[in-house]
Amino acid sequence: MTKMKALTYDDIGKWKVVEKDVPTIQDGGDAIVKLVRTTICGTDLHILKGDVPTCDKGRTLGHEGIGVITEAGSELKNFKKGDRVVIRCITCCGSSMADSCRKAGWILGHTHDGTQAEYVRIRYADTSLFPVPAGADERALLVFSDILPTGLEVGTLRGKVTPGCSVAIVGAGPVGLAAGLTAQLYAPRKICFFDQDDYRLQVAKKMGATHTYNVKGNSDIRALAKEHIGEADGFDVVMEAVGIPATFDMCQELVGLGGHIANIGVHGKPVNLSIDKLWSRSVTISMALVSAHTIPTLLDLYAAGKIDASDMITHDFKFSEIEKAYDVFSRAADTKSLKVNIEF
Amino acid sequence: MTKMKALTYDDIGKWKVVEKDVPTIQDGGDAIVKLVRTTICGTDLHILKGDVPTCDKGRTLGHEGIGVITEAGSELKNFKKGDRVVIRCITCCGSSMADSCRKAGWILGHTHDGTQAEYVRIRYADTSLFPVPAGADERALLVFSDILPTGLEVGTLRGKVTPGCSVAIVGAGPVGLAAGLTAQLYAPRKICFFDQDDYRLQVAKKMGATHTYNVKGNSDIRALAKEHIGEADGFDVVMEAVGIPATFDMCQELVGLGGHIANIGVHGKPVNLSIDKLWSRSVTISMALVSAHTIPTLLDLYAAGKIDASDMITHDFKFSEIEKAYDVFSRAADTKSLKVNIEF
Repeated sequence: MTKMKALTYDDIGKWKVVEKDVPTIQDGGDAIVKLVRTTICGTDLHILKGDVPTCDKGRTLGHEGIGVITEAGSELKNFKKGDRVVIRCITCCGSSMADSCRKAGWILGHTHDGTQAEYVRIRYADTSLFPVPAGADERALLVFSDILPTGLEVGTLRGKVTPGCSVAIVGAGPVGLAAGLTAQLYAPRKICFFDQDDYRLQVAKKMGATHTYNVKGNSDIRALAKEHIGEADGFDVVMEAVGIPATFDMCQELVGLGGHIANIGVHGKPVNLSIDKLWSRSVTISMALVSAHTIPTLLDLYAAGKIDASDMITHDFKFSEIEKAYDVFSRAADTKSLKVNIEF
Repeated sequence: MTKMKALTYDDIGKWKVVEKDVPTIQDGGDAIVKLVRTTICGTDLHILKGDVPTCDKGRTLGHEGIGVITEAGSELKNFKKGDRVVIRCITCCGSSMADSCRKAGWILGHTHDGTQAEYVRIRYADTSLFPVPAGADERALLVFSDILPTGLEVGTLRGKVTPGCSVAIVGAGPVGLAAGLTAQLYAPRKICFFDQDDYRLQVAKKMGATHTYNVKGNSDIRALAKEHIGEADGFDVVMEAVGIPATFDMCQELVGLGGHIANIGVHGKPVNLSIDKLWSRSVTISMALVSAHTIPTLLDLYAAGKIDASDMITHDFKFSEIEKAYDVFSRAADTKSLKVNIEF
């Protein structure tokens, strides 16, 4: 049996590159995909911290990537050997609610081996892969596996961004930036980013933010919004793109009457909900795992030149350097890294 | 100037019946309504506890009632002297969002004198009063001023009750019962009430609950739901109709994947949000003050014999006995009171 290299979750705080068997077709709906590019997600770091107990040690990490099909299961209708594909971060058996699918769902790099390896087995490939658009810059497509659909589905759509509304995004990391980019599809009048990192705020500005604010040392974010942004009554849509209690608090300060808080952050702790202040203010709070059913729409927008997220890819590595890539990605404040491109 | 009796907020913990001037028309859009019946709301008790600092001492309480117009402002198009009316708890200037109206909103028995008096001045009367349907039992209409629209708008509609869904309601007080009654308009397959009071649970059953559970001393409500109700995966819609941290916690235990928590309770304290457990479960949490724009729909349903909330009215008093009514209403567990009918 042929062997391949894979980056695995070794133990809390530790990754390890190991040799594994190249996966093979187990079911007619499977495809084996040879990776061309992959990337690292904040969720991979959560696993390494031990925050995701459902992920076993030894698991190949990664749920994002671009590849080429080397073997197609006998039942596949949409794909054949040689097709170049975008991998959907959430494996979908074709049911309507991929994020809550009992058979599949978020399995890649979690309960099944993922995309930070030379090959990956994709289950339900007909509905868990998407064709690379003709002539695409595949490096730019890396963000279409997860963070762009996450920004769109969990931020923009659940937050109900509508033309003319005001949007605040707390956290200018990859997911926050993706949310801001997809929010622009709905023509808000204002997109304001709040972060502690000037570099990330610069990228946000480049990617279409109308206002950016460094909140380091600022204890009264509502006053900031009122004095400098003219949103005295709060924002229509507020997105939480960090995942800690302090940033969730900021969202509660920023949300306006009738507004939405769309939580995108992955939280490891409970938060305080100021329902005593918010109960009468017609506020809605949403939270969800991405389903990634919007990838085809996003790829159509990419092909039409209507969405460009390439500013988010800050670093390039060879797969042989993936441990270095992890090191750079996990020290984002020092290294000014957002998404990393890892080539095979 | 003619005098009248009114029940007022005297000081924290104290009400007082006083003599006030009968109100007069101040604006062409006003109506003066002579009360025929009024009632007491849990919100009045909140004011008496000092929980509503925007309500001044000396204010006539009450935002619910049935009356007859004794004076109609010159600009009124929908009403004339002698018309019998249901008073809308939220005064509405005609804008689309009455609950957030800056000119009016919840002013009755709050920032302006309310309905626990012989007469009340209603501003924007064309859009803040509704005609009593011909032949109606006006005693049964008392719940149409506030709690029935609250149950419908803040519970059933914001909670997105749909045919075939499962509904859990935490709290079988008047507002919880109103929510359960209006939920039935959308044909859920199951409506389960959770409370600590057997009498209230009996009323819930009589009013259409499919399951009722006394949660006193039960520390694991999810196990209760799983073992006895067959909702191992949680409920589609969970309504919070109490307004304390413990009941909000129960709602978080009961909500299922993709479910809604509709907060109806008036909260005086923040709550804990278990976002670490819920972030990936596609949960939506809503909270709002009623707008009461659904009163006409509810009155049509009443007239068509499709909604009957009369089981909720447990006690009858004369207006001269309003202090006794307050005493009975505020000791609900002992007196088995839900809504009280106070006749003039």
